Amino acid sequence: MVKHRVLLMTEQFFTYTDRYVKFTQPDKDLLLAALGSKHLEAKTELVSYDKPVDELYFILKGCLRKYFVKEGQQITVYIATPNSFIAAFDSFMTGTNSQEIIECLEPCELLVLKKADLEHLYCQIPLMNEFIRKVLELTLIQIQQTLTMYILDNPEERYVKLLSQNPDILQRVPQHMLATYLGITPTSLSRIRKRIITKP
Amino acid sequence: MVKHRVLLMTEQFFTYTDRYVKFTQPDKDLLLAALGSKHLEAKTELVSYDKPVDELYFILKGCLRKYFVKEGQQITVYIATPNSFIAAFDSFMTGTNSQEIIECLEPCELLVLKKADLEHLYCQIPLMNEFIRKVLELTLIQIQQTLTMYILDNPEERYVKLLSQNPDILQRVPQHMLATYLGITPTSLSRIRKRIITKP
Repeated sequence: MVKHRVLLMTEQFFTYTDRYVKFTQPDKDLLLAALGSKHLEAKTELVSYDKPVDELYFILKGCLRKYFVKEGQQITVYIATPNSFIAAFDSFMTGTNSQEIIECLEPCELLVLKKADLEHLYCQIPLMNEFIRKVLELTLIQIQQTLTMYILDNPEERYVKLLSQNPDILQRVPQHMLATYLGITPTSLSRIRKRIITKP
Repeated sequence: MVKHRVLLMTEQFFTYTDRYVKFTQPDKDLLLAALGSKHLEAKTELVSYDKPVDELYFILKGCLRKYFVKEGQQITVYIATPNSFIAAFDSFMTGTNSQEIIECLEPCELLVLKKADLEHLYCQIPLMNEFIRKVLELTLIQIQQTLTMYILDNPEERYVKLLSQNPDILQRVPQHMLATYLGITPTSLSRIRKRIITKP
């Protein structure tokens, strides 16, 4: 039973890696040996404010959000769904304490890769550099788009973008958290929703 | 004379790459064959708004800034100095038009790498994946820190951070552009400067 679950988890992970690089079976065995797993309840804090971070996560199941706290207010910058990596990348790479908080919005199944193990994998599997290069490209695009959105878009434009890019999120994330993603109050959010619904 | 200049340029570039990976001489020869160069006057627009982008730049000399325009206002998000890469990474990687503008603040000497040539280099030089992975890590840290700064810091905190991280920029960049980096008016900037200078 446990073995079957592990098989399903690794199958899901390698379906993802296969999209980017062709790891050999010996490569996959080394990768598997390095990966841990975590099952977390909803509302668990995966990454905490001002703590060092040395893990990278691949989301098998569930939904997480990344947020900052400014003057007691939460500011959500990213909502992550399965088949993607999530981490406090800045802290992970520089060794500084995390300024971000990552929290599970639903029960989550994660694969865990520790920094020391990743460094070791780079030496064991040269293709790992190509794989992580592609993961970083996706991450960079995501962070850059968040920055662009923060600078250029008003809340209504952000909401419309979210609707088109990830309509799934709207069902999974409570309204008040969505409002912190858009940088507005829940009341303003319901006003925007009404406006969009009644648009000709 | 021209040959001597090219030698100096490539020496500077490989001093940079040597920090991250050990390219062999055949690797370096392939890289050199793929690199172009650009000499640009101050105020030249290197990357334009809403245009596709298929080049990546390594700064040999000069200083550039990356900015957005919102409702006629310029918002500077990055100021780049020699021995680093600059690009509209999001557009470069996704093939979409650039939302950012990159402009030379001083006369600039750049090395140019076209996207198609980079893709080709990945096949020719496996180590290129490791090198670009490390370049992307640095870029990601920079964009993440810009995002964090935009969300968490007030203009005075941003100015103090800039002073400690890159005091050189304060000499090179005109005050009114620095103000657009901090998201304030030039008048507010000189008020902040006075306040910091007179602090006990």
